[in-house]
Amino acid sequence: MLKVRVAVAGANGYAGMTLVSLLLGHPAVELVQLTSRSLAGRPYSSVFPLCNLEGTFEAEPDPGRAEVIFSCLPHGVGAAAASQWVRAGVRVIDLSADFRLHDPDLYPLWYGAAHPAPELLPEAVLGLPELHAEAIRQARIIACPGCYSTAAILALAPAAERGWLGPDVVVDAKSGASGAGRSLSLGTHFAELDESVRAYGLAGHRHHPELTQELALLSPSALPPVTFLTHLVPMVRGILSTCYFDLVVAEEELEAAYRDFYAGQTFTRLVPESPPTKLVSHTNYCAVNVSSQGGKAIVTAALDNLLKGAAGQAVECFNLAFGLEPGLGLAGGAQWP
Amino acid sequence: MLKVRVAVAGANGYAGMTLVSLLLGHPAVELVQLTSRSLAGRPYSSVFPLCNLEGTFEAEPDPGRAEVIFSCLPHGVGAAAASQWVRAGVRVIDLSADFRLHDPDLYPLWYGAAHPAPELLPEAVLGLPELHAEAIRQARIIACPGCYSTAAILALAPAAERGWLGPDVVVDAKSGASGAGRSLSLGTHFAELDESVRAYGLAGHRHHPELTQELALLSPSALPPVTFLTHLVPMVRGILSTCYFDLVVAEEELEAAYRDFYAGQTFTRLVPESPPTKLVSHTNYCAVNVSSQGGKAIVTAALDNLLKGAAGQAVECFNLAFGLEPGLGLAGGAQWP
Amino acid sequence: MLKVRVAVAGANGYAGMTLVSLLLGHPAVELVQLTSRSLAGRPYSSVFPLCNLEGTFEAEPDPGRAEVIFSCLPHGVGAAAASQWVRAGVRVIDLSADFRLHDPDLYPLWYGAAHPAPELLPEAVLGLPELHAEAIRQARIIACPGCYSTAAILALAPAAERGWLGPDVVVDAKSGASGAGRSLSLGTHFAELDESVRAYGLAGHRHHPELTQELALLSPSALPPVTFLTHLVPMVRGILSTCYFDLVVAEEELEAAYRDFYAGQTFTRLVPESPPTKLVSHTNYCAVNVSSQGGKAIVTAALDNLLKGAAGQAVECFNLAFGLEPGLGLAGGAQWP
Amino acid sequence: MLKVRVAVAGANGYAGMTLVSLLLGHPAVELVQLTSRSLAGRPYSSVFPLCNLEGTFEAEPDPGRAEVIFSCLPHGVGAAAASQWVRAGVRVIDLSADFRLHDPDLYPLWYGAAHPAPELLPEAVLGLPELHAEAIRQARIIACPGCYSTAAILALAPAAERGWLGPDVVVDAKSGASGAGRSLSLGTHFAELDESVRAYGLAGHRHHPELTQELALLSPSALPPVTFLTHLVPMVRGILSTCYFDLVVAEEELEAAYRDFYAGQTFTRLVPESPPTKLVSHTNYCAVNVSSQGGKAIVTAALDNLLKGAAGQAVECFNLAFGLEPGLGLAGGAQWP
Repeated sequence: MLKVRVAVAGANGYAGMTLVSLLLGHPAVELVQLTSRSLAGRPYSSVFPLCNLEGTFEAEPDPGRAEVIFSCLPHGVGAAAASQWVRAGVRVIDLSADFRLHDPDLYPLWYGAAHPAPELLPEAVLGLPELHAEAIRQARIIACPGCYSTAAILALAPAAERGWLGPDVVVDAKSGASGAGRSLSLGTHFAELDESVRAYGLAGHRHHPELTQELALLSPSALPPVTFLTHLVPMVRGILSTCYFDLVVAEEELEAAYRDFYAGQTFTRLVPESPPTKLVSHTNYCAVNVSSQGGKAIVTAALDNLLKGAAGQAVECFNLAFGLEPGLGLAGGAQWP
Repeated sequence: MLKVRVAVAGANGYAGMTLVSLLLGHPAVELVQLTSRSLAGRPYSSVFPLCNLEGTFEAEPDPGRAEVIFSCLPHGVGAAAASQWVRAGVRVIDLSADFRLHDPDLYPLWYGAAHPAPELLPEAVLGLPELHAEAIRQARIIACPGCYSTAAILALAPAAERGWLGPDVVVDAKSGASGAGRSLSLGTHFAELDESVRAYGLAGHRHHPELTQELALLSPSALPPVTFLTHLVPMVRGILSTCYFDLVVAEEELEAAYRDFYAGQTFTRLVPESPPTKLVSHTNYCAVNVSSQGGKAIVTAALDNLLKGAAGQAVECFNLAFGLEPGLGLAGGAQWP
Repeated sequence: MLKVRVAVAGANGYAGMTLVSLLLGHPAVELVQLTSRSLAGRPYSSVFPLCNLEGTFEAEPDPGRAEVIFSCLPHGVGAAAASQWVRAGVRVIDLSADFRLHDPDLYPLWYGAAHPAPELLPEAVLGLPELHAEAIRQARIIACPGCYSTAAILALAPAAERGWLGPDVVVDAKSGASGAGRSLSLGTHFAELDESVRAYGLAGHRHHPELTQELALLSPSALPPVTFLTHLVPMVRGILSTCYFDLVVAEEELEAAYRDFYAGQTFTRLVPESPPTKLVSHTNYCAVNVSSQGGKAIVTAALDNLLKGAAGQAVECFNLAFGLEPGLGLAGGAQWP
Repeated sequence: MLKVRVAVAGANGYAGMTLVSLLLGHPAVELVQLTSRSLAGRPYSSVFPLCNLEGTFEAEPDPGRAEVIFSCLPHGVGAAAASQWVRAGVRVIDLSADFRLHDPDLYPLWYGAAHPAPELLPEAVLGLPELHAEAIRQARIIACPGCYSTAAILALAPAAERGWLGPDVVVDAKSGASGAGRSLSLGTHFAELDESVRAYGLAGHRHHPELTQELALLSPSALPPVTFLTHLVPMVRGILSTCYFDLVVAEEELEAAYRDFYAGQTFTRLVPESPPTKLVSHTNYCAVNVSSQGGKAIVTAALDNLLKGAAGQAVECFNLAFGLEPGLGLAGGAQWP
């Protein structure tokens, strides 16, 4: 199989590490460079001791060697470099938040600074294949959505498209600790998080505007406000989005709309019972269940935040962008427990 | 200190075990009998090896020896015996669901059988001291509310009393595994629950009618429907209730109402940040936070399901019923982490 | 690629489920039958909802359809059927304990009954490729060793072969809960196991005679007694074997012997730091570290009990037995965290 | 009850926080001061929000106000101040390592600097009541032993005293994450520690010389080397010490010696089954089990590292030092699960 030359920038965080693991097993990938400013000069084996991966971390990606750069750099950092990469003819699959929001005025509100490369925003495509497969195939810049946004968008998109979301959508999201990354904080100290669950970011979470942008694009009329609240759960991986909204059609009709919407999708699947996150742990699947209680629809969606919520979805986008099978390199089956 | 003669029926489950631990350290309690049908004839030390507790489990409670029986029997079982106990002049503090619902017609809907002692329902008092302290002092039958109900009622009562709950109340509740009891099931098998979170009981949970009964009693007008959904989280103890409802007053006014409502309460406290369940773990406190996002109030309440949600609250009721300090025997301070 | 027709007997436990997941992604496998007495008649999708696996569980394996049967049946059950399978020309890869011990007199001591098929024992080969690759290639019956035994044998084999194990070998083994299987017990109830570690089986564990059989076969002289103690740790997957024995050579010489012994091995690797079990979680690797403290060698070995300790090693054996690459279908890379 | 004026220095770590919780419920304690350099000027309620504790953290302890200072300062820091405190007539209960080792030459080997107050070492008493109750009653400086040392000493002391420890003692110790303190590190990041167990400090742990000092003092002849290895387990609290040594007497005689040694002890108890750490979690008990396998004794000891391994034991010492009941303020019973 012809191989695409791939570089990974910022390969030292959880998303980057997961991405490298996936790319190592991908039959159409030649991994030409891993970068990390903090690890520059150290051998790859210091981070990936069992992977037979020869080479040394470099500080900066070299667009001369790669056809595509997966960027796992922090927000603000990758976007600043991206225009240079794109000008050099390299495609960019960005796992940061930099190219997710189309409106450049939103960026400073949520990220505290002006956007570093607003001229690139018009051509960036959100890397959610269930919604944007066609655009991803052609895009030079693919912005993978956040883990929370992916779960919530997939839970609500079919209802949004039909105009069935009223003024009282509540998304109560629960995530494992790896979603907070590898940086140290008291909130993810084992002794503080274990045996505890808590809400955080009550005033607002950065994945909120991604979610409303996408639902609004799908909605036939103006999207009412969406309440979105995140919780930290004592587990490593997984997101469960529990979504509540007023039923305006029968539950069967709602479920049928979801079934239509996701028909033929490789990775998003309707399941008959509300899914535990373990069902999709270590896979690229998103499992969605449609149910109701009284007059409320309850839609739950579960995914692995590091795979469908980050690195796995990035590989899906890569497959689309380079004309490959959508599930190539992502076949690792569900392993229970 | 004068001691009350106390028996515990069904002392072999988690609520019963926790209750025995509390009563052993209670200065006004003489523990005269522990019963368990499955453990009858075995020494107390087989269940409580470090407690210096002499004696042998008996099969049935003996109302001749005790002034009060704490009943941790399964629903249906305790109520059948309770009329005999009450006739013998013994007060009953029931941790099962049997005497929680005032309307006898609700019982078969949720518990699948006719109520075993409907004649006692009129005098049963719900054992939630924040709402019913006066009645608890006089009651012969005190029905401690469920763990989920306690958290949700405490999170919503002040708003209900003011008539501020509209048609879109959503209670998204998260619980640790001990809430499901000591019986074995695949859902609480370590390998299945660990590293996973899931919703369950989407169609309805038995604590739902307790919750709506109490909120309706507080409401100045008819209570709109409440959506209530439970989740199982990989931790042993703790419940977090995240409650969403439309803000009809300013957040400050809402918080002031909560502050008034809980002023002077020993165990329910307003806290300035949304509480992790660990904050109240191994204590009898319920920590409540009032916040908002856009036009939605977000009230979170955390408690330990085995203490404030079961055995601790039962001891609170005991203290009230026997004219003791409300916190007697419940002083064990918060221990972090 | 030519495909081997494979059946899995007892596909409803953790080892069986893991095996099915691996075989589904194996390029040289055609899965022709899954059996489970308890699930007979139910569709495969009831256990593997995301796997696109069509078909229905049957009660009994059919040796007429398969070239090889992976048996995940309980000990005693599979062996009774195996002679029929072998006579029908089918090769058997057994994950139970039935064919591990060469001495039929040991079986009743550890399993409480006479061996159901002692006539097959002489041709059974222990399925530990690091020790028995040649024999596995030819074997009709391959008996995969237990998860604990695999970790302890791999931790001690190089020292045993040199005759460096003295009279004070201690193996302190720690396992996650999935090693105890999917059956329910109070010991693996989440609320009892979480936040707790304990030793169990102090008098002796069934993996002990496997361990000593294999070390004795390697030893140039009689093997001294080995102390072997198992612990249950609050995690789903993983075994860590911490092995202590008197250093009779310099630590460097010891480590060199290990390096020689495992040179060229696909799955057992020497690592420079004592490995956390997470390093090999969801992989088929066994990571071994050689260290010392004072005059004691300390060798630690980590593996995933469901992969290298069960289903993964079974697939390794299958690959050898059918002349395939040793790592075929086992490439799923390490995913951290 | 007459109250002792107590200050706690360094009340912001896990041991300090636990100590404050215990002292708040202690009937003979008046808490006069909490100090923390990092929190100086902040109200106590910022760390203890539910404790009704009025006041403000100060930077330095004031020996003029207290009769006893519990020091939870880092090693090196407290010892430097202690001579001033002692000269001012204040008794010191030190939870750091500074006064544990009698030999000042050992200190720089394990702590990397000369001892800051070697002149105080001769009068310091190790705060392990099972061994040194008489000396603790009179001591001006009480040095509470480390959590690992406490568990291992209590597991081995009776055998050491009889001279039954031979040349092959192995202590395999397992601890929860709170033992590593509240400081942040990758090793206690939830995503790295959860679902993983690992050995650490293979070359040697600081609690090792405490352990051998105490066992040597008990031994009738020279103590042979002891191998001591620590492991980190994914749980918050608890230590399990699994100790192996050659049986030189019958198991019954060994167990009888343990029974004699701990007869009448309040907190160290022989238990008939090897104890899970949960048995003693949130209590001040140490549960010890004596067993054997072949010719090896296996003694397991379990305790809560923050209580019997730190703050609880410090309160025990306080009780002895001020002539109070040994268990005063430590009665909080075992709560399962």
